[in-house]
Amino acid sequence: MYCNIFDSFDNSQGIWKYLKMSAQMTAQKKTVLIVYAHQSLGSFNQAVQDVAVNVLEEQGYSVVVSDLYVMNFRAAATREDILGDLKNPDLFQYGDETMHAWMEGRLSEDIVEEQRKVQEAELIIFQFPLYWFSVPAIMKGWMDRVLAQGFAFSMEKMYNNGIFKDKKAMLAFSTGASKTMFQPDGINGDINVTLWPLQNGTLHFCGFQVLAPQIFWGPAHCPAPVRTAMLDGWRDRLRGLSAERPLTFAPCELFDLSFQGGFVLRPDAREELNSRPHGLTTGHHLGKPLPPDNQTDAPPQSGAGGGPSASRPTNFTSR
Amino acid sequence: MYCNIFDSFDNSQGIWKYLKMSAQMTAQKKTVLIVYAHQSLGSFNQAVQDVAVNVLEEQGYSVVVSDLYVMNFRAAATREDILGDLKNPDLFQYGDETMHAWMEGRLSEDIVEEQRKVQEAELIIFQFPLYWFSVPAIMKGWMDRVLAQGFAFSMEKMYNNGIFKDKKAMLAFSTGASKTMFQPDGINGDINVTLWPLQNGTLHFCGFQVLAPQIFWGPAHCPAPVRTAMLDGWRDRLRGLSAERPLTFAPCELFDLSFQGGFVLRPDAREELNSRPHGLTTGHHLGKPLPPDNQTDAPPQSGAGGGPSASRPTNFTSR
Repeated sequence: MYCNIFDSFDNSQGIWKYLKMSAQMTAQKKTVLIVYAHQSLGSFNQAVQDVAVNVLEEQGYSVVVSDLYVMNFRAAATREDILGDLKNPDLFQYGDETMHAWMEGRLSEDIVEEQRKVQEAELIIFQFPLYWFSVPAIMKGWMDRVLAQGFAFSMEKMYNNGIFKDKKAMLAFSTGASKTMFQPDGINGDINVTLWPLQNGTLHFCGFQVLAPQIFWGPAHCPAPVRTAMLDGWRDRLRGLSAERPLTFAPCELFDLSFQGGFVLRPDAREELNSRPHGLTTGHHLGKPLPPDNQTDAPPQSGAGGGPSASRPTNFTSR
Repeated sequence: MYCNIFDSFDNSQGIWKYLKMSAQMTAQKKTVLIVYAHQSLGSFNQAVQDVAVNVLEEQGYSVVVSDLYVMNFRAAATREDILGDLKNPDLFQYGDETMHAWMEGRLSEDIVEEQRKVQEAELIIFQFPLYWFSVPAIMKGWMDRVLAQGFAFSMEKMYNNGIFKDKKAMLAFSTGASKTMFQPDGINGDINVTLWPLQNGTLHFCGFQVLAPQIFWGPAHCPAPVRTAMLDGWRDRLRGLSAERPLTFAPCELFDLSFQGGFVLRPDAREELNSRPHGLTTGHHLGKPLPPDNQTDAPPQSGAGGGPSASRPTNFTSR
């Protein structure tokens, strides 16, 4: 839960080491975790999940599914998430208390179980229907509760230096709207803007290499053959997923990460970026046009014919 | 819940009329609804809420607070939200089922109660600590469940033509991060991008006139006098709130709202916008620089000295 990033915490010891060792011992196979939020067995989202499970297992992965509705996953961040006494019973501060509880092994069992799955996975797929330009509340609850400070981030470990920098994550979601509605000139505006809080602010914040989102545009309004083609495309993509490059974000190294410096771009980085036609990312636009499709398309493979696109920074990719 | 906007529904009749009449009869005073999500009585957020209740009551408003944690508000969108039989028991589709349930007065009691409060309010303040660049899950659940199709939007009634176009809404939230971290050159990127899904995609989608957000930057890291000054500023703002202009969004009239037209900008609107230095909104950037502070600052009062800013469209404000 991201609300106390100023409370620094060194995650290199204690329960962290234990969890890591435990993960290494139990994870015989490479594991993919699918965090799944749809209510219906017969839904398109269920078919999407089935395809993912089948293709990934064919490729030798062990696939774990957290089916949030079936699990009746608690979404609200409450006192019940901490076992035992509070550090500050007079003023319950969720972020602080869960950080201490994580350090001391006193988080509630359902959170610990999900954290174990995250720890063992090399890829997490969040699969859901888009609700109000974001994840459904039950999945937001998973993010709020499972991605606790200490476990998922610290003041020193965030973004490209984040705790999960060796893991990948991706959003796979269906929409009610069509693709054109989510263009920069469409009624809903650019989907790249909509995805920023989830992809940069949550997944990449924890260090994840974020793969391009898999967006199923309006399946409920498409004829069956189109839905079938969508699933075929997903199947094909999954087969090549391990070779995909992640999306581009702004690396921490460009910023003055001190209170005096205000956590803003360093002057030399700003100068280097000044001559470029686009901003650095969707959120780091620097008053320039956004780099097109920054949150939906990965940069082209290096060496795959031609130099890097003029619209993308060359030195300033986060990995 | 926004996932089936293609299922059109005429909201001008039936239960809608009944709710409206009922609201008119019971709402003797002008009402403000505060949807509130913080766990602690002693928190800064509680102090913020207390200020709002006091100042608004002083000004003659009736203030209703939905304290989501105290209410133990259910966040997950489930079958339990529909009373009686499902229209399609073989495939539970939450958006469709809740739309029909709303039409037929079969939504669960907790949803109906919140809808009644929305109906009676002329302003809704959403107050929360920012969790993962968004609202806490319990508040996302309020949005997912209460803002049902038919009640809060329809295919014909959205954005500036939306059902709640005579109401105002605003976000009031605290952050863990500092203001500079949420600049376009700050480590977290532009807060205007972060606010888009909530302000445009949720509140304005339902028609609300969205007032500039009230952002309390990092109160947990500020000395007490600074927090007191924040509350004083909030008190002052609340006293002038009724005169504030809302944020600028893209009006529906600029778009070809047909399936053939793809719900994108009409050619004449595009031409009109071509000569402007900035895009229309944060999401409708059209490949240009974003209009600065589009999601954090309302346009200047008309006639308040000088013409409209060059960075803002003149004809194309939504109201």
